[in-house]
Amino acid sequence: MSKIVRVLPLNSNVVKYAIYEGEKVNVIVASPFEGMLVETSETYGIDEVKLLPPCLPSKIVCVGLNYKDHAEELGMELPDEPMLFLKPPSSVIGLDDTIKLPAMSKRVDHEAELAIVIGKRIKSAAVEEARGGILGYTCLNDVTARDLQEKDIQFTRSKSFDTFCPIGPWIETDFAPEAQAIRCIVNGETRQSSDLSQLINGPDALVSYISHIMTLEPGDVIATGTPSGIGRIRAGDEVIVEIEGIGSLKNHVERG
Amino acid sequence: MSKIVRVLPLNSNVVKYAIYEGEKVNVIVASPFEGMLVETSETYGIDEVKLLPPCLPSKIVCVGLNYKDHAEELGMELPDEPMLFLKPPSSVIGLDDTIKLPAMSKRVDHEAELAIVIGKRIKSAAVEEARGGILGYTCLNDVTARDLQEKDIQFTRSKSFDTFCPIGPWIETDFAPEAQAIRCIVNGETRQSSDLSQLINGPDALVSYISHIMTLEPGDVIATGTPSGIGRIRAGDEVIVEIEGIGSLKNHVERG
Repeated sequence: MSKIVRVLPLNSNVVKYAIYEGEKVNVIVASPFEGMLVETSETYGIDEVKLLPPCLPSKIVCVGLNYKDHAEELGMELPDEPMLFLKPPSSVIGLDDTIKLPAMSKRVDHEAELAIVIGKRIKSAAVEEARGGILGYTCLNDVTARDLQEKDIQFTRSKSFDTFCPIGPWIETDFAPEAQAIRCIVNGETRQSSDLSQLINGPDALVSYISHIMTLEPGDVIATGTPSGIGRIRAGDEVIVEIEGIGSLKNHVERG
Repeated sequence: MSKIVRVLPLNSNVVKYAIYEGEKVNVIVASPFEGMLVETSETYGIDEVKLLPPCLPSKIVCVGLNYKDHAEELGMELPDEPMLFLKPPSSVIGLDDTIKLPAMSKRVDHEAELAIVIGKRIKSAAVEEARGGILGYTCLNDVTARDLQEKDIQFTRSKSFDTFCPIGPWIETDFAPEAQAIRCIVNGETRQSSDLSQLINGPDALVSYISHIMTLEPGDVIATGTPSGIGRIRAGDEVIVEIEGIGSLKNHVERG
């Protein structure tokens, strides 16, 4: 069971990949996208590093309307194929970073999601082959300017503001989605609460489908959709995306 | 007047930036995103290199419905704000590379576009500041699976297939959009023919607007929309996007 983190040691300016082990992190020999997870003797206390977003995706592919409970909540028919949209790499932030509310929007929402992290390049993979392309899983908040999403035909603007894609805290490599709990907690209050058995298209099917459209690269992220209970976040809020068996992704919210 | 190319010398496997000068290319000291355009004494004949896509964008931001003639053709009202969507970096190909028609679509179209190449990081830039963030311009073909665009609510799938974003052949740094001709030519027949005076939102306004949503990074590309005359491409076709004052981007079309 490995939790891969990307860290900046506070006494250095060299970013490193490491394995998180509670009170400390052990730096690994190479990036997890380049080789085996081999630990070095270089170790830092958890207070001696800043946890960064656990990967730097070349693209973030998001899936809309992929939870049964969320589709029911919206009274929408299920799409016959996964509905895709993209968030830009410039929207990514990590654990404890600040979500900034843009002046352009009057209503920004949280969307708790399970994210797949791709481990190696895959293209046109069959469903059975897809799992081999997955390095692990992390938590993702698909922050959305709801008013702009409703106004625009395309989701792009509403989903693409800087800081609108918190991911982390780590990549859990020993995780298979079954019926683990997924929650969004705002200021201590549970706003979204579902479980991964509600996923309409599971990770292997999504990776296979998307890989028939675009080549997936190491470090790319697939956001698998959000369950029911989406709601507003405001300046001053603390928002947590929590997935049983992975961990908690906490961010604060401020005006941009 | 500089035409910046990214080249792979045929006798090497090291990609270099260079200045195109007709029969030869002169390698420059650093990437155009890192420093001045200073030529070295390293020179190759044009037959000794492969021209690559002139930049590797971290994101490609596209603008829909941005030509007066195209909006009229579609009988659509002009949007009050630019309509944005994204293409992934995995869709980029260069001059003479092959556009591959995916099995998932029955109808793939060309869309000739003027592309802006960002030279330095900019965020929330005023219109007057935007020009300072632009390195230059190139040609782009926003290849689109028209049937999937009509089926899906989001443009993402239809615009994101591998090879669906030819860009090149170079970044022209000495270019100011006025009323230069823009054309798409398929198998020698002119299919799109307009000029840049038809642009609804010009480059400075687009860069400013987008930079208020997402931080633009060096090498990022903004596709400024397509004029009237979009139409189908088929296996075996040769498609050229041509912009007066920049150059010609030619690609062949094959089944994927």
